[in-house]
Amino acid sequence: MSGEQLRKLLEQVRAGGVSIDAAVERMRHMPFEDLGFAKVDHHRALRHGMPEVIFAQGKTPEQVVAIAGRLLKSAKNILITRVEERTAALVKRKIRKAEYFPLSRAIRVWQDRTIRGKGKIAVVCAGTSDIPVAEEAQVTAEVMGNDVIAIHDIGVAGIHRLMSNRERLTEAKVVIVAAGMEGALPSVVGGLVSCPVIAVPTSIGYGASFNGLAALLAMLNSCASNVTVVNIDNGFGAGYVASLINRV
Amino acid sequence: MSGEQLRKLLEQVRAGGVSIDAAVERMRHMPFEDLGFAKVDHHRALRHGMPEVIFAQGKTPEQVVAIAGRLLKSAKNILITRVEERTAALVKRKIRKAEYFPLSRAIRVWQDRTIRGKGKIAVVCAGTSDIPVAEEAQVTAEVMGNDVIAIHDIGVAGIHRLMSNRERLTEAKVVIVAAGMEGALPSVVGGLVSCPVIAVPTSIGYGASFNGLAALLAMLNSCASNVTVVNIDNGFGAGYVASLINRV
Amino acid sequence: MSGEQLRKLLEQVRAGGVSIDAAVERMRHMPFEDLGFAKVDHHRALRHGMPEVIFAQGKTPEQVVAIAGRLLKSAKNILITRVEERTAALVKRKIRKAEYFPLSRAIRVWQDRTIRGKGKIAVVCAGTSDIPVAEEAQVTAEVMGNDVIAIHDIGVAGIHRLMSNRERLTEAKVVIVAAGMEGALPSVVGGLVSCPVIAVPTSIGYGASFNGLAALLAMLNSCASNVTVVNIDNGFGAGYVASLINRV
Amino acid sequence: MSGEQLRKLLEQVRAGGVSIDAAVERMRHMPFEDLGFAKVDHHRALRHGMPEVIFAQGKTPEQVVAIAGRLLKSAKNILITRVEERTAALVKRKIRKAEYFPLSRAIRVWQDRTIRGKGKIAVVCAGTSDIPVAEEAQVTAEVMGNDVIAIHDIGVAGIHRLMSNRERLTEAKVVIVAAGMEGALPSVVGGLVSCPVIAVPTSIGYGASFNGLAALLAMLNSCASNVTVVNIDNGFGAGYVASLINRV
Amino acid sequence: MSGEQLRKLLEQVRAGGVSIDAAVERMRHMPFEDLGFAKVDHHRALRHGMPEVIFAQGKTPEQVVAIAGRLLKSAKNILITRVEERTAALVKRKIRKAEYFPLSRAIRVWQDRTIRGKGKIAVVCAGTSDIPVAEEAQVTAEVMGNDVIAIHDIGVAGIHRLMSNRERLTEAKVVIVAAGMEGALPSVVGGLVSCPVIAVPTSIGYGASFNGLAALLAMLNSCASNVTVVNIDNGFGAGYVASLINRV
Amino acid sequence: MSGEQLRKLLEQVRAGGVSIDAAVERMRHMPFEDLGFAKVDHHRALRHGMPEVIFAQGKTPEQVVAIAGRLLKSAKNILITRVEERTAALVKRKIRKAEYFPLSRAIRVWQDRTIRGKGKIAVVCAGTSDIPVAEEAQVTAEVMGNDVIAIHDIGVAGIHRLMSNRERLTEAKVVIVAAGMEGALPSVVGGLVSCPVIAVPTSIGYGASFNGLAALLAMLNSCASNVTVVNIDNGFGAGYVASLINRV
Amino acid sequence: MSGEQLRKLLEQVRAGGVSIDAAVERMRHMPFEDLGFAKVDHHRALRHGMPEVIFAQGKTPEQVVAIAGRLLKSAKNILITRVEERTAALVKRKIRKAEYFPLSRAIRVWQDRTIRGKGKIAVVCAGTSDIPVAEEAQVTAEVMGNDVIAIHDIGVAGIHRLMSNRERLTEAKVVIVAAGMEGALPSVVGGLVSCPVIAVPTSIGYGASFNGLAALLAMLNSCASNVTVVNIDNGFGAGYVASLINRV
Amino acid sequence: MSGEQLRKLLEQVRAGGVSIDAAVERMRHMPFEDLGFAKVDHHRALRHGMPEVIFAQGKTPEQVVAIAGRLLKSAKNILITRVEERTAALVKRKIRKAEYFPLSRAIRVWQDRTIRGKGKIAVVCAGTSDIPVAEEAQVTAEVMGNDVIAIHDIGVAGIHRLMSNRERLTEAKVVIVAAGMEGALPSVVGGLVSCPVIAVPTSIGYGASFNGLAALLAMLNSCASNVTVVNIDNGFGAGYVASLINRV
Repeated sequence: MSGEQLRKLLEQVRAGGVSIDAAVERMRHMPFEDLGFAKVDHHRALRHGMPEVIFAQGKTPEQVVAIAGRLLKSAKNILITRVEERTAALVKRKIRKAEYFPLSRAIRVWQDRTIRGKGKIAVVCAGTSDIPVAEEAQVTAEVMGNDVIAIHDIGVAGIHRLMSNRERLTEAKVVIVAAGMEGALPSVVGGLVSCPVIAVPTSIGYGASFNGLAALLAMLNSCASNVTVVNIDNGFGAGYVASLINRV
Repeated sequence: MSGEQLRKLLEQVRAGGVSIDAAVERMRHMPFEDLGFAKVDHHRALRHGMPEVIFAQGKTPEQVVAIAGRLLKSAKNILITRVEERTAALVKRKIRKAEYFPLSRAIRVWQDRTIRGKGKIAVVCAGTSDIPVAEEAQVTAEVMGNDVIAIHDIGVAGIHRLMSNRERLTEAKVVIVAAGMEGALPSVVGGLVSCPVIAVPTSIGYGASFNGLAALLAMLNSCASNVTVVNIDNGFGAGYVASLINRV
Repeated sequence: MSGEQLRKLLEQVRAGGVSIDAAVERMRHMPFEDLGFAKVDHHRALRHGMPEVIFAQGKTPEQVVAIAGRLLKSAKNILITRVEERTAALVKRKIRKAEYFPLSRAIRVWQDRTIRGKGKIAVVCAGTSDIPVAEEAQVTAEVMGNDVIAIHDIGVAGIHRLMSNRERLTEAKVVIVAAGMEGALPSVVGGLVSCPVIAVPTSIGYGASFNGLAALLAMLNSCASNVTVVNIDNGFGAGYVASLINRV
Repeated sequence: MSGEQLRKLLEQVRAGGVSIDAAVERMRHMPFEDLGFAKVDHHRALRHGMPEVIFAQGKTPEQVVAIAGRLLKSAKNILITRVEERTAALVKRKIRKAEYFPLSRAIRVWQDRTIRGKGKIAVVCAGTSDIPVAEEAQVTAEVMGNDVIAIHDIGVAGIHRLMSNRERLTEAKVVIVAAGMEGALPSVVGGLVSCPVIAVPTSIGYGASFNGLAALLAMLNSCASNVTVVNIDNGFGAGYVASLINRV
Repeated sequence: MSGEQLRKLLEQVRAGGVSIDAAVERMRHMPFEDLGFAKVDHHRALRHGMPEVIFAQGKTPEQVVAIAGRLLKSAKNILITRVEERTAALVKRKIRKAEYFPLSRAIRVWQDRTIRGKGKIAVVCAGTSDIPVAEEAQVTAEVMGNDVIAIHDIGVAGIHRLMSNRERLTEAKVVIVAAGMEGALPSVVGGLVSCPVIAVPTSIGYGASFNGLAALLAMLNSCASNVTVVNIDNGFGAGYVASLINRV
Repeated sequence: MSGEQLRKLLEQVRAGGVSIDAAVERMRHMPFEDLGFAKVDHHRALRHGMPEVIFAQGKTPEQVVAIAGRLLKSAKNILITRVEERTAALVKRKIRKAEYFPLSRAIRVWQDRTIRGKGKIAVVCAGTSDIPVAEEAQVTAEVMGNDVIAIHDIGVAGIHRLMSNRERLTEAKVVIVAAGMEGALPSVVGGLVSCPVIAVPTSIGYGASFNGLAALLAMLNSCASNVTVVNIDNGFGAGYVASLINRV
Repeated sequence: MSGEQLRKLLEQVRAGGVSIDAAVERMRHMPFEDLGFAKVDHHRALRHGMPEVIFAQGKTPEQVVAIAGRLLKSAKNILITRVEERTAALVKRKIRKAEYFPLSRAIRVWQDRTIRGKGKIAVVCAGTSDIPVAEEAQVTAEVMGNDVIAIHDIGVAGIHRLMSNRERLTEAKVVIVAAGMEGALPSVVGGLVSCPVIAVPTSIGYGASFNGLAALLAMLNSCASNVTVVNIDNGFGAGYVASLINRV
Repeated sequence: MSGEQLRKLLEQVRAGGVSIDAAVERMRHMPFEDLGFAKVDHHRALRHGMPEVIFAQGKTPEQVVAIAGRLLKSAKNILITRVEERTAALVKRKIRKAEYFPLSRAIRVWQDRTIRGKGKIAVVCAGTSDIPVAEEAQVTAEVMGNDVIAIHDIGVAGIHRLMSNRERLTEAKVVIVAAGMEGALPSVVGGLVSCPVIAVPTSIGYGASFNGLAALLAMLNSCASNVTVVNIDNGFGAGYVASLINRV
């Protein structure tokens, strides 16, 4: 339908029924959509292999199921984030292929498993409490067609564990680092690898961590030049950007 | 020199002069450097085409000139950031090939101009006051071997100017967006392109901008999933990461 | 009753029982109310068509019903904001004409539907999560006698949807924009229209949104000159001021 | 010039040299500007009587004079804000009709003095230290074609002075209130008038005023429903929005 | 018992059994208490008519009852603050004379009702939501022997209600003002009276009130010189200090 | 002059030329001032012995001298606060009786030295760096007619010095305590005395003192119930309120 | 197992099967662990008498029991912190020797009670509400082999109670001070003793304590030079560092 | 002189001229100092080898010289911190033995060079910009009688440099770590050593470092249990506490 109105106008121009001046004037007031810049079309070409994403927070279980059902008609892969347990139960009952990840509260339908990323994405986290955020990043990166290396619990106070994983880290084309508390891990990892590092502050911490603010500020101030930062607990965003980088 | 001590120890092992148990014990207490993990070596292979970087802030003009002179013995390209005018004058007098960028207060020696990036990097800024930060990003990206598309002064309150540059933006493999005040531009650009967007909050603003805090928070909360963030006014960091992404 | 004491004094002056000096002195010490500056009177003339408003937060269901009942004796239109579900149920049982809006938790009695505003008020929101705040603004503006154009879910990361609604936006005499996360929408809308824009930051967001602080700061720093700001989640305030502007 | 390319394409369509499909395709990739949505045109109709505005901060005296000179070829009224003394001196030497307001550091060229506002705008400030911000608002509102009532130094701790000006306040169609320190004045004024109140927090204060943050927060939390807020010290923004409201 | 050890030492000095040098030395190492500076004694003289105070927060119902019982053996008046409902029920069952104030969650045993204050204390609050804090102040001031004038719901946006109570305010020797939201009331009251004003910010407010921070900052920045401030929601502290002032 | 218009109206009422209804109506619209509530009159009675106060900050030396000269025609005592050195020099040249206090940057004309306070006011400070603020409080309290006991440099880390001054502290009817850094002194003093304590946080400190914020928060959270707080560095405010308390 | 691979390589070197160059190269790429820097070994020697520590927060009761059981095979002493009641019940049922401390929510298995500290550690707290944090510090210090002096409820507003404990304080080699509200106690204690003081801010307080921020800032700004600070409510950390100091 | 009055009283008691009751009473009201608790005496015994310390900030050059001169009559070692250049020049002219450290702006008179610490103190810093703070710590620790190991410029992004210094770090009995930006170094060092680590955040950083706040928060949230924190840039405090620990 999009572009239909424009097409009609051009036909009238060709037929001489509308002057060029009048056509320009009418195009100026046409609804934007009708000029053919429809978002969906424009972006589709760029999005081969991208999953459809649903943020479940603030939606009822029924709404989530309905949206997922509709999307599955055209999409092979779906990612649902921030899913409450009650919603997860309903989705799994209604959609057979759905996997639920209780730690990260993500749901994934992963039918097209083509690898599209050029290299591997490493997903690293500092402590076991940061695993939910790291897992959200991993689930996202996988469903977007990437090989993921997951390395958990290599906090900076035990630098030996980190050093033991050095070789695996240098294999990656992009590294995601999730850390709470003092948020120091991205700086150390950033110094060990030469690729881009995406830092995800987590809200893990006590007292003066202020729900992840301490880690966020630390990461923004990283002395390693290859570090960029996403929002607190935003594992999805980190996985998403890492996937884009891995396809550049 | 690095590794020399280790080599000697191994020769003694081979000659039988040192038992294996004793060798293991001594290696355990050897200075780390001597085991051959020297930083410089390890990283060199990964750093083809990387410029040497000097942060001039807090250094005297003489110190900056001395460091630059030393580095130029082995490096073709040098980038010096946060250069005071007095330092810039001295550097330019001593180092002929040095270009000085007064807006961004950067100095560049750019002898090896090989393009190493796979695509173009777009450097976008919201207002004319953000140009210094954008320029630092551009100077960095160029000296690291990238083609840069610079687009200035396309703030969100004049969305038409941004829309007019849409096609140029979609040409890029990575987009850097510098913006102060409300920091909204990365979100809008992020929605127009499919590649990674690196957002740089600038300290430009009045009153409740709190020296870039408002823009920083806005960017961290971007509703566009392809946005990551670096520190306030950190044009260098944005240019550096964009260059890494462009080579992945 | 108000003014009674003053009237008595004036009669004594006329009758000669009180000298002018004594009258001036006594008036100086009379309770303010009695001099006739009673708030209710003074303001009534200016308030034709204004609904009575009740903030339900912190009041029991019974208190809300009682106040509403009392006000309905003289007022045709009533607005009750921040209503808990239990209160809503009781109000609807007791007051037949009451409509309840569960998203925005507002109740409205809307008997006098005269249009008093000169033009239309557009109420725009960035994401579906911002709808409750937008709805509070809409319900307020309508009960105050305005035609409202509601446009939902036109966030800045999908600028095409916003552009498609450009014409509808320019029809309005005032625009209310509710947005959470990075709070960028008011700046973009402010650049598209020439009328006043009232920005309402919402508490929607994660991590570093700090319950709406990020959006609030962004809006205060808007580069569009026609933007003013109300408190976080204050849909009522935005609807109220927009109504005043639409009658100026 | 804008639209030229579109016009040519339409002629080719009419002449049959380009098929409709091809035309739609080419329009899809045409630079946005050429489709005739040029910002300048679109907005001009809405901007009768608007002055051209220059933010002088961060510009050299010569740049400011050059921009002002260029604008004066088509505009009758010009407003320059945040002008340093040295810039002011140069502007006044080069542009005869320029008035300089040293308190608010504004310059105004005011040749077309047509009154376009429907009513009066009151500009109120709490203390003498707030006058610079109030003056910026007044200078802005006047050059945009409004009658301004200026009322200074009626802080809330001397409520009698405020009460004495009650009648003058109720004459206005919009009230701008500038206040620093505890920022209480907008709430009190908001309760006395029935029209919209635009609150401008000023950076005046000591210690825990934190450069206007205390006043800003107070105004955002005003218990008067007719109050909206602009950025700290943003007298221009307040004057601008008030002028828009006064023309609605 | 306190002082006993000192007394013994002095007797030995008098008897010649301990030299003066040795006595000085031993006194230097004696437990402080034994020198007679016992807190309880020292302060008792100054505390005629002061109630005993129990902060119930974090104590079990049984603990509160036990402490109250013990204190009632020597004290006539008791004040218990921040009492949970379950605790209140137990206290009332066990201690007959206890009054419970559910709004302010205070309990009072008030047997000695002698008026000790020289004048009246006015307790004023801005909105009905501030009444719990105001009530805590009032209950405290009364049990400490003061006549209290309570004036509720005279917020600054309805300045007429405040002006109507002007005469009653000027009767007081000290005024306590509780206000949330923009916290403006203490400044206005401070300008109307000549006595000390104690401002209590309350945590009442929405969004950018940040649980009373906005009101707290406003009050600290009051332009009225006779205002001092206590902690957020600290009605007890305000009532306590007002009582001290009223006895000076 | 004030009241003139009211008087005329009353005469017309007495003469029968204006009906009572008409008089009430006209009074309702009379400028407030004319009703005789002129601020100056109303307050004068309450202000015996109060000095006139000038805040010099932001005023030129000439303005300060002019205002001081005018006030000295009716007032015996004047206090000028926040005086720059250049202003101080001019004031002293023009006004012979002016004393200048360079530490606190206050100027005082103190001709009427009647003691009006009932007891003594103690002004205590924690470190020598806090003396300027303490001195401002002392100068204020003295010129308002109080006997002041000044005790400097008794910080909490040397509790013995504080204990040595215990007796002098208990002599006072009000205690002012100025402290920067951790702001602990008011709590300790508050526990030693039974009278009201006014705490003044000073901006003295390093790093995480955040210009007095640390001390301010500490004082607001004092565990001593007799402590109230004024703004950072507000020695004048503390001296002013202490004087009011000392006269209650 | 650790070091095994290295040992084999050395044997091959000795046997001549691997050249020295090749050996150096292979060592460069060996997993770090295999070079013998295994964390566990390296640290064991330094950790005689250290308990194993489990942070229970975020772990299920079953996980805690499982980890504790495993550790008890090699360790005599175990400390479990931040234990929920349900977890505590299970641990006590499964592990007989476990003591549970409900205030501090710590569990301790304390079989090896050798005193390893050189002197005593004093654990002091300001109010009864700070006891849970103090207890966590005490339980930690004891299980690490220290004699602990516990002194509770000696807040600064009752300085006499503190002075009475002066002698006991000076007995200690390290002092831990836990305090909420204004956090003043460490400064006072720091002035009384000559040993290191570890300050623990607690989250106890109201309003502007901001969950311990006020106390934290106060302690960081302590005017006593012997004070260092740990995170809010971090009793464990304080006990841990104090134990290290006591063994230096 | 101190204690004189007490001694006289005891003599009167012995002589029978004063009864024991009267003596107790008089002692109760004696100035504290006279009871012999004079701070100087009490502490002297504990302070062998401690230097006298002068904070020069806010003092004139003449004042600093005068204080230093007076102290040198009894003390061998003096430390002066935060010395302006002009002050340094004067001190060096007047006091021959004074060394000036321009980076840390410290002055030291170091005549008694006895080593009193039991082990070595390591002073580590992350970047060259942190050296001034590290130097202040070193100068302090040395003048207090400690052997210091200084290790500069071992930031976490170049972990190899840190690992190369591992052995030197483990030699120390206490480690001081100064770091700005993300403040990550103390956590990494804390994991490598078993002794106490004192973390000093520095104000070095850009943008969102907020003058050291980012580093401060990171350090307070360190995942290494042996880390405690002092104020931003407080090198003196770190050196002081480290010296105390090294003598425990």
